[in-house]
Amino acid sequence: MRNIKLVIEYKGSNYCGWQVQKNGTSIQSVIVKAIEKATGENVALSASGRTDAGVHALGQVANFKTASNIPSERFAIAINSFLPEDISIVESVEIDADFHARKNAKGKIYRYYIWNSPRKLSVLSGAATRIPGELDVAEMSKAVKLFEGVHDFAAFKAQGGSTKTSVREIFGASVTEVAVPFEIEGGRLVCIELCGSGFLYNMVRIISGTLVELGQGKRSETDILEALHSGERELAGKTLPPDGLYLYKVLY
Amino acid sequence: MRNIKLVIEYKGSNYCGWQVQKNGTSIQSVIVKAIEKATGENVALSASGRTDAGVHALGQVANFKTASNIPSERFAIAINSFLPEDISIVESVEIDADFHARKNAKGKIYRYYIWNSPRKLSVLSGAATRIPGELDVAEMSKAVKLFEGVHDFAAFKAQGGSTKTSVREIFGASVTEVAVPFEIEGGRLVCIELCGSGFLYNMVRIISGTLVELGQGKRSETDILEALHSGERELAGKTLPPDGLYLYKVLY
Repeated sequence: MRNIKLVIEYKGSNYCGWQVQKNGTSIQSVIVKAIEKATGENVALSASGRTDAGVHALGQVANFKTASNIPSERFAIAINSFLPEDISIVESVEIDADFHARKNAKGKIYRYYIWNSPRKLSVLSGAATRIPGELDVAEMSKAVKLFEGVHDFAAFKAQGGSTKTSVREIFGASVTEVAVPFEIEGGRLVCIELCGSGFLYNMVRIISGTLVELGQGKRSETDILEALHSGERELAGKTLPPDGLYLYKVLY
Repeated sequence: MRNIKLVIEYKGSNYCGWQVQKNGTSIQSVIVKAIEKATGENVALSASGRTDAGVHALGQVANFKTASNIPSERFAIAINSFLPEDISIVESVEIDADFHARKNAKGKIYRYYIWNSPRKLSVLSGAATRIPGELDVAEMSKAVKLFEGVHDFAAFKAQGGSTKTSVREIFGASVTEVAVPFEIEGGRLVCIELCGSGFLYNMVRIISGTLVELGQGKRSETDILEALHSGERELAGKTLPPDGLYLYKVLY
């Protein structure tokens, strides 16, 4: 059996998340069906990790075993022809038989996009989270560095995860203003980027919520340090919605 | 009665266009219903012009007469609270009683966005038209200038319009590479901008299709001049899909 690695992009707005759920259509099931149409095989597709309902990906990675003799780079084209517009295979390569998208992942990069404006972002609905009002990006950009390094992120974790430890390493973190899509006027787009060894349930959305509250002047760097040290969820900020969250890259 | 002018943004993908049609939901009807919820009045809402199914707007303009005493700038907020995510009122102002969004329009700016990449743009599905393969943007940028000035655009018009003359003036035209949204890798975003006195049915989509074919080396500047002079539709390029088209601004 050959082992095929896929790099996957999707807009998560119309799905219940990566994994099969009781309600809604999962991204995984849509891709598995497309692979079946392309190869005739009902494969087991393992991703680097789940993404929740409404969360997007620019570089999700998954792998599957196949007996098909389609040339490795042609899998992307073949599978894409059976996928809807909002899911696509960016790249397909054949990889070592023991490669596993989740077990071999050394880290991930997540990005959280905030549209800071009184104006709704209708032409890009679902693609960023809107925060109206003042937002001090320079302060957020300083504070995000507090998350770098090895920390117990217990305060930045939603209930429901199944991991043994809440200690993770953040290799790098930044908050920057980036180009506004389609030159839409009246607002700015802010990107929170976190690169780390692994992420707890809702961790990026809670860290982003905490940074937004700091940018709004509702929270200080001392509050963030206290949350990190105490591990108490109440000391961290609100969980932001899934709309702004992108799994940007998986590191191997 | 007061006369209220609205600046409107929408993603057209889920609608049958601005105007009420037999099938599908129109943007106009959604906004009229929202105005009714906000004011209690069933108003006549006149736009600067129709947009077709799937076409977007960043600066559509419409006006309506009302007896409501809502402060003019609060109409935007009141109506927005009854609109879905993909339609929004950017601005509301009270204007002279004789202002009419269509009759008073002196010109319009349309933008057509092309995602030039082998990669699908899933996280922005419906927001740009994908053209894979080589595209000579420098040549397109030169050729677009041929459309500037007063011309008979008969060759760049779909059947079905109801205008008396196909002579229009293009005040300015450009083709530029613009920032890729969300720093998506593996492609570039090209923007065709046309500012003109008025536009015939499908005119921007046919001009854009002609420029793309020129950028692909399938068509020369001489071909464009011949199409302009002859008025023969067959001499112009294909009509591109609505996905990339934005009504950017209406000039008064």
